[in-house]
Amino acid sequence: MSSNSFGKLFTLTTFGESHGPAIGCVVDGCPPGLELDTDDFAMDLGRRATGRSRHTSQRRETDAIEILSGVYEGRTTGTPIGLLIRNTDQRSKDYGNLLETFRPGHADYTYWQKYGIRDPRGGGRSSARETTMRVAAGVIAKKWLAARYGIRIRGCLSQLGPHRPEAMDWDVVETNPFFWPDADQVPMLEAYMDALRKSGDSVGAKVTVVAEGVPPGWGAPIYDKLSSGIASALMSINAVKAVEIGDGIEAAAQLGSAHRDSMGVDGFASNHAGGILGGISSGQPVVAHMTLKPTSSILIPGDSIDLQGRPVEVVTKGRHDPCVGIRATPIAEAMLALVLADQALLHRAQCGDVGEVLPRLV
Amino acid sequence: MSSNSFGKLFTLTTFGESHGPAIGCVVDGCPPGLELDTDDFAMDLGRRATGRSRHTSQRRETDAIEILSGVYEGRTTGTPIGLLIRNTDQRSKDYGNLLETFRPGHADYTYWQKYGIRDPRGGGRSSARETTMRVAAGVIAKKWLAARYGIRIRGCLSQLGPHRPEAMDWDVVETNPFFWPDADQVPMLEAYMDALRKSGDSVGAKVTVVAEGVPPGWGAPIYDKLSSGIASALMSINAVKAVEIGDGIEAAAQLGSAHRDSMGVDGFASNHAGGILGGISSGQPVVAHMTLKPTSSILIPGDSIDLQGRPVEVVTKGRHDPCVGIRATPIAEAMLALVLADQALLHRAQCGDVGEVLPRLV
Amino acid sequence: MSSNSFGKLFTLTTFGESHGPAIGCVVDGCPPGLELDTDDFAMDLGRRATGRSRHTSQRRETDAIEILSGVYEGRTTGTPIGLLIRNTDQRSKDYGNLLETFRPGHADYTYWQKYGIRDPRGGGRSSARETTMRVAAGVIAKKWLAARYGIRIRGCLSQLGPHRPEAMDWDVVETNPFFWPDADQVPMLEAYMDALRKSGDSVGAKVTVVAEGVPPGWGAPIYDKLSSGIASALMSINAVKAVEIGDGIEAAAQLGSAHRDSMGVDGFASNHAGGILGGISSGQPVVAHMTLKPTSSILIPGDSIDLQGRPVEVVTKGRHDPCVGIRATPIAEAMLALVLADQALLHRAQCGDVGEVLPRLV
Amino acid sequence: MSSNSFGKLFTLTTFGESHGPAIGCVVDGCPPGLELDTDDFAMDLGRRATGRSRHTSQRRETDAIEILSGVYEGRTTGTPIGLLIRNTDQRSKDYGNLLETFRPGHADYTYWQKYGIRDPRGGGRSSARETTMRVAAGVIAKKWLAARYGIRIRGCLSQLGPHRPEAMDWDVVETNPFFWPDADQVPMLEAYMDALRKSGDSVGAKVTVVAEGVPPGWGAPIYDKLSSGIASALMSINAVKAVEIGDGIEAAAQLGSAHRDSMGVDGFASNHAGGILGGISSGQPVVAHMTLKPTSSILIPGDSIDLQGRPVEVVTKGRHDPCVGIRATPIAEAMLALVLADQALLHRAQCGDVGEVLPRLV
Repeated sequence: MSSNSFGKLFTLTTFGESHGPAIGCVVDGCPPGLELDTDDFAMDLGRRATGRSRHTSQRRETDAIEILSGVYEGRTTGTPIGLLIRNTDQRSKDYGNLLETFRPGHADYTYWQKYGIRDPRGGGRSSARETTMRVAAGVIAKKWLAARYGIRIRGCLSQLGPHRPEAMDWDVVETNPFFWPDADQVPMLEAYMDALRKSGDSVGAKVTVVAEGVPPGWGAPIYDKLSSGIASALMSINAVKAVEIGDGIEAAAQLGSAHRDSMGVDGFASNHAGGILGGISSGQPVVAHMTLKPTSSILIPGDSIDLQGRPVEVVTKGRHDPCVGIRATPIAEAMLALVLADQALLHRAQCGDVGEVLPRLV
Repeated sequence: MSSNSFGKLFTLTTFGESHGPAIGCVVDGCPPGLELDTDDFAMDLGRRATGRSRHTSQRRETDAIEILSGVYEGRTTGTPIGLLIRNTDQRSKDYGNLLETFRPGHADYTYWQKYGIRDPRGGGRSSARETTMRVAAGVIAKKWLAARYGIRIRGCLSQLGPHRPEAMDWDVVETNPFFWPDADQVPMLEAYMDALRKSGDSVGAKVTVVAEGVPPGWGAPIYDKLSSGIASALMSINAVKAVEIGDGIEAAAQLGSAHRDSMGVDGFASNHAGGILGGISSGQPVVAHMTLKPTSSILIPGDSIDLQGRPVEVVTKGRHDPCVGIRATPIAEAMLALVLADQALLHRAQCGDVGEVLPRLV
Repeated sequence: MSSNSFGKLFTLTTFGESHGPAIGCVVDGCPPGLELDTDDFAMDLGRRATGRSRHTSQRRETDAIEILSGVYEGRTTGTPIGLLIRNTDQRSKDYGNLLETFRPGHADYTYWQKYGIRDPRGGGRSSARETTMRVAAGVIAKKWLAARYGIRIRGCLSQLGPHRPEAMDWDVVETNPFFWPDADQVPMLEAYMDALRKSGDSVGAKVTVVAEGVPPGWGAPIYDKLSSGIASALMSINAVKAVEIGDGIEAAAQLGSAHRDSMGVDGFASNHAGGILGGISSGQPVVAHMTLKPTSSILIPGDSIDLQGRPVEVVTKGRHDPCVGIRATPIAEAMLALVLADQALLHRAQCGDVGEVLPRLV
Repeated sequence: MSSNSFGKLFTLTTFGESHGPAIGCVVDGCPPGLELDTDDFAMDLGRRATGRSRHTSQRRETDAIEILSGVYEGRTTGTPIGLLIRNTDQRSKDYGNLLETFRPGHADYTYWQKYGIRDPRGGGRSSARETTMRVAAGVIAKKWLAARYGIRIRGCLSQLGPHRPEAMDWDVVETNPFFWPDADQVPMLEAYMDALRKSGDSVGAKVTVVAEGVPPGWGAPIYDKLSSGIASALMSINAVKAVEIGDGIEAAAQLGSAHRDSMGVDGFASNHAGGILGGISSGQPVVAHMTLKPTSSILIPGDSIDLQGRPVEVVTKGRHDPCVGIRATPIAEAMLALVLADQALLHRAQCGDVGEVLPRLV
């Protein structure tokens, strides 16, 4: 199946380059009857958009989305939902010289090796612009999961360079430009990012996403593990280099007696597992983290080669994010929503809809 | 597509439970003409097997494999390769009482919620026994990758509980029961594991796998990223809670100027990226890590509930690994091999076989 | 997805050659809780088996099936069901000389062109022996469709060479060796087949399959049309050259006023459509037909070439069916069952289980 | 995968309703470097378009296609190709009353049973308008197959109601409004269609498609048979009720000695098989036929029911084709091209590109 598609039953197929006429997607498999309107997309597209604070790229994306199909009189019909956003504010001249050279840390060289041809304008297909359509599709998945199962999906930044939050307050996440859950640290982060931007450098980050209300029983024992789906989904986001479930890499140094989550009449005593046991949801919150590398587009010159293999020095101009992780929070939420919607459909295909075999633990 | 299948073109489908009559698999899509014999499987199946040292489960798996199809006069014919191993040395009575209770940290509860029925003997389908077939399939993938592209895939343990290797010597990895790359530390690890086993507890671990000789250009820009495939593959292994590519979670605190790998006439100056840029192989070694949680089967009693939701205390007897990570090294290699073989076929489908668009950097 | 797999959710993967050690399959996606026992397979495997009358191949297949996984205490668990039949009574020497020549009308030449290698014993993978596993998987699909939705699937021969039935009596279909629905014609067919066999020639046939009780709403509007799935399924059976739905090729010469099925308060007035409108089941019986060519293995010499491209004369000895269509009836039923089970799961994934949006017409 | 997608590697995903804002598609997997321009689509879109003669629907589709992605400086880049056509000349009022009733022979009733909601304007998703995008995608597949392998794909009408051509002259097919290969019969067909249109009725038809130059070895032995793919592809076209390969249903009455195609030093002596043996191409022309039912949209009143199950009389106004088969020729060609392109990629994935294991027969 298409390498630009995600999901088996609740599927997303995206197309479009950063500086082409438009980006778009097809969401297929969404159950019929879901209320859907272009207004539904505004919030999450806005959260992902550039140009909203001085800490992200200054490219101004208006992201006016058009629903081309699959919705009739305000409800999904079960047929494929086509979405389209025209590209505006492209400044291709910023990239003109990059056709001849390979920017270090970028996909330029690997695209060239794969295809022998590439659209160099704005990174072409490898631009983070593609993730706009993931966010749009994620809006539909989120809305269906909420309407059908009462699931809530949220995300925040859980590391920014060397800094980690000391408090975990969901209420403040949407009130600062970093999706940061610790309000007291925000001024410090502002200063950190200002200095970083001034230095012309960039930095990595970690994003955490949580889905509450996921019924037990989603996922599958072997190659369709819920954790495997999440890993594939988050790792498919640009710049991601690690995915963790629950305690993640901390589990390497833990003892079994400490890691395993006890169960009692009132439910699980802890959630080291991140809501997944044996690849299947336990009914606890599903918790995942992804680590993003620092963007390679920085003002500091770097060594590289050109098409003829000659050494060149590359400086990446254009309008870039000093920390791509910041805007990645809504993207991670969207991908988690897409995985869960897909697993919801897979589960009810084989096992019927959420039954109550056993009183569910919370 | 079957939830018990892995791969789009070079595909593996497994079946079988720990204490059923047999486990088996179908490997489909392997190119014709590859030499293949039952002897090819001995080494990797042996590396994965239990009972080889006092540090793993004492269940004795003989793992006599039978090639049922797809091979004619010692060569693959391009038709599906059926493999079968009869189960022996099952001691189902060890597990008899577990049908009524859910072991904490295990898939018992989530299986029950999903299916409303489960085979409790030895964990049934969720037993690590299934991974035998991944290793067997991985042997075929490894052999084809080596024969066709000269690729070499190796793995080692890179963390055992709190311990990390101080040296990285591939030559010693196969000479100790831990797949440990630092010979000097082996006695210390022996003592650590002896004490752990005596305590009745278990511990987590990290495994690193490396593929050398992967041509540039494998993978795809969006949802078929090579990194995404690896993440899915490794996260599908029992007990895995995190997957990292290259520098992995370390990238969160890195600066862009430090992380990005410069290119010069002699190739890349470093490999922070782990051999993957923009989801596509760069020609450098592909490096991935996976973190495994401590096994939940321990002798220390744990709180849980039974089928009626009543509190119970569970002690897991039977023959378990105090660190499942140890035997996971060949499994991780196999899954990496399967991902690469699949990506090799996907690449040559769309772009033809490995061409030399540009002199390849090493 | 494996080229030896069928179905998206209720999936079948087969392996094995005619003269290899065994044939087998993996049925994945079957809902949990279905009663299943080796005895369930006896009837349909027997209906497909050779050697039951003088009108089919005299090879004696015992077809002792073994359930290797996926069933616990007589019920499916939702995990993959592995099935195995050991091959017996192979007489490979019958085929020894065929490695050097290409039998006209057979897959010998095309296999060679595709793979450059082939297992010539008994046709290897292209032997009708593979269909044993389709029948076995179809037993599971049939049983689930009957238990869950009350669906009944039946088939009969509807043309044998130049002969067509003049009566349509399901009750006599299983009482004669031809699956023929017109008892009066059976003696005539016996004589026809005896003469054909004596002549050393073979003949084509048509098989009709009907599924009653299929709920309205299964299938999908575009590329997952129920009719498209049936076409793919039946055309995948050896020797099939045409697939028809409902009136099939007769529709070419029909007027719209005659073809379209009127609806009234008591249901549809006719079933020209074969139970499918716009690719989706209407609640009427689903009716499909497949045409099989005459087997190419005949005693009459034929012109061909050998591996070096030199002209040769080929006479196919061995034990062959003078009309492969006769034994194809249970295979067609099995494939229809697999398509319907798959569509059932796809339907309830997206749209929930069979609801009664509208009083169903019968 | 998406029910609105076709193909495994060379994939098409379509979206859009007849009277929505636009129809569109994503073609993914096309090899990089193919020259492609909007002008390439004009001819085949024109051949499929309505309003070109009095014998097809009078709706005027301008079908101005826009390439949204995947092409850079006139060449495909290997990334997904997004195509879009805005809908114009919708007259939804023609269909207003159909929301409450089910037209006999249409998908109205089955859509309603499936989804419980539908877009009634112009048939919504079940409109033949969707096939515009198949033709567009087929243009790309055709162009690549021609450029890479020298394959030529052509189609013609081979039955129109009771009439069949007596001559087979490709040169005249594009010179008459019926894609008819027998010039002498065209005046007779004009008269036949005029009378039919006047009667308010419709009629069925058969379309034949032929691919010349297909290399031997494409397809696969079991569930990915080339014939199986073609059957699925053609049966997915609106109104198709039968698919035949080569001699098709004629094979039922043939003897093996007559049907099988002899081979000699100069190639095959005949092509009863339609270019496919054992599911794999033989190098001969691939020949397939599809039968289309008469359109159900006719001026003659028909009995049906409304949403409340009450009897109603339905007359279908609007602008309909009296024989949908006429415009189906380019659609059949497109689907055949998509199947072949997909099989080309599948073949070279597993077996490498077209090799010359044996001197190819023609």
